[in-house]
Amino acid sequence: METAFDYARYDRIRPIRWTGATLELLDQRRLPFEQEYLVCTSSDEVAAAIHALAVRGAPAIGISAAWGVVLAANEVEAGNGADAVRQLEPAMQRLNAARPTAVNLAWALARMRAAISVAGGDWREVMLHQAQAIAEEDLAANRHMGRLGAGLIAPGSGILTHCNTGSLATAGFGTALGVIRAGVVEGRINKVFADETRPWMQGARLTVWELQQDGIDATLIADAAAAHLMKTGAVQWVIVGADRICANGDTANKIGTYQLAIAARHHGVKFMVVAPSSTVDMDMASGEAIEIEERDQAEMHGIGSVRTVAEGITAWNPVFDVTPAGLIDAIVTEKGIVERPDSARMQALFGP
Amino acid sequence: METAFDYARYDRIRPIRWTGATLELLDQRRLPFEQEYLVCTSSDEVAAAIHALAVRGAPAIGISAAWGVVLAANEVEAGNGADAVRQLEPAMQRLNAARPTAVNLAWALARMRAAISVAGGDWREVMLHQAQAIAEEDLAANRHMGRLGAGLIAPGSGILTHCNTGSLATAGFGTALGVIRAGVVEGRINKVFADETRPWMQGARLTVWELQQDGIDATLIADAAAAHLMKTGAVQWVIVGADRICANGDTANKIGTYQLAIAARHHGVKFMVVAPSSTVDMDMASGEAIEIEERDQAEMHGIGSVRTVAEGITAWNPVFDVTPAGLIDAIVTEKGIVERPDSARMQALFGP
Repeated sequence: METAFDYARYDRIRPIRWTGATLELLDQRRLPFEQEYLVCTSSDEVAAAIHALAVRGAPAIGISAAWGVVLAANEVEAGNGADAVRQLEPAMQRLNAARPTAVNLAWALARMRAAISVAGGDWREVMLHQAQAIAEEDLAANRHMGRLGAGLIAPGSGILTHCNTGSLATAGFGTALGVIRAGVVEGRINKVFADETRPWMQGARLTVWELQQDGIDATLIADAAAAHLMKTGAVQWVIVGADRICANGDTANKIGTYQLAIAARHHGVKFMVVAPSSTVDMDMASGEAIEIEERDQAEMHGIGSVRTVAEGITAWNPVFDVTPAGLIDAIVTEKGIVERPDSARMQALFGP
Repeated sequence: METAFDYARYDRIRPIRWTGATLELLDQRRLPFEQEYLVCTSSDEVAAAIHALAVRGAPAIGISAAWGVVLAANEVEAGNGADAVRQLEPAMQRLNAARPTAVNLAWALARMRAAISVAGGDWREVMLHQAQAIAEEDLAANRHMGRLGAGLIAPGSGILTHCNTGSLATAGFGTALGVIRAGVVEGRINKVFADETRPWMQGARLTVWELQQDGIDATLIADAAAAHLMKTGAVQWVIVGADRICANGDTANKIGTYQLAIAARHHGVKFMVVAPSSTVDMDMASGEAIEIEERDQAEMHGIGSVRTVAEGITAWNPVFDVTPAGLIDAIVTEKGIVERPDSARMQALFGP
């Protein structure tokens, strides 16, 4: 028998708001100091916001792109869905190109495309309903995953997380941060640590702020302090999100995730990946095929507008890395948990 | 037969200057944008500069402290060295307390104390000579270590380093960066990567700048990108300095070093520690006894004066970590190299 669980109490932030005519995105570049929503009136504005990291987090990117399609439809005159999709295609391509690594982006666009293409004269209503469903299903999935993942955690555990996988990165509740929310509420987690996550400092700017908003204490550490923290025994699980999970369980996520997984295994700390099943890409056999986005080296020349390096310095700025399945103890999705993931276990849950 | 080696050509910076009456310290908090020397006229000003990280790097701290003793002697009236040491003791205690982890600090003060205490009426000259010797021996040791360490590196290698261990951290040439300088000149190293090294960003602000000054290309990466870099095969050695090396080879160094050592072992990348023998503390059996300095959490609230986190966020800010000897392939000192360090091999080189 399930006890009542007050999801909303620990989940106050909503980064994506559809007003009926415009898409409002909480501008995550300005957090935690300013809480301002960027108003998008066209799909290209949505694509630009995704590329510029005003909205970020694989699920949030997918949801935003779905609404971007709805905005693109303002420019379309079509008598049926198939015709509408043909006209929407260029805008969808531009949305898809905004971030190459996050599979949810392509997934959300494919879902919109599929729904609209079979619609008749009511394609606008079908499209709106589909975008709404993508957002609502994400929130529901996160709440379900949160409780599933928390069930793996022994009472009294300490957790380390990376980047931001919270309400800010999703329709709400979060993926890895959803597990942490649920684990805190259930009394399984007594200490939360968050990495800064250079270069964009999502952990410092977003994660500890988001948890603070919901009354959950978290301690910030430098990315380089994670192994030392593990050595102290303060952490039993590392819990992270994912941008793409391959058919064998290899997982692409924010740069630094792989390093955490190696350190976790070295210390006997467990490693959990939490993501909606839309992140699973069963068509990609292993992580070797994943395209790793490299962003402008200028992002490594300072923090925000503050320069930290001399003129003429070269930097390398890969945004993601791939954690091999062998370093992952559990992949948690709304469809269920894959422990010690490999191709067979992934196939059992996500196969056709 | 040794070929001629133009040490000075790749080593232009001197962070510590004794003018005969004052100690000038290149203020490393303002680099790389301003090259200003802080003028110290008292030992307490030197202690404050050490604590505030205006001067940093274990060898540079030791040298600065030695000159701090010379400045303290301005306040002393004594007929012989033993009497002078008694009067100097409070100032030496305050210098020693400025940074607890760096053993060179205590080592330099002990060496000054020992030299002065046996001097007669000429104790001021003895003291000056000793401070000068500490500085000169450091430079000579670094040049020697540089070539010793470079000898371990196969031609065509890529290197990753952490923090700043260069001329800026020493009397000149550097420790780990000295090996890199020598390896580049000898054609063994064809690519150098440097970690940013949060929270003080010594890699971003100092290391890549210092190498740039000397015409050596280096590529900056985020601390969290190191394992991903290793996976690409671009790096054959991680080379770092040390703040304290124990009798069994366990090594305290800048936070993040331990994480690099774990990732290096995971990838079959070799791991080298480079430090003068003054860093070796044969009285400390293992790393478990090392006191890890924790600095103000405010250093984790932003970068320099720029805030990155919301008000009220808690941070954990350990400055060092301990890399166990088992993860180290070579410890390089001016006395020689200890490969695969353990207590017996350390004793063979550094024992009485």
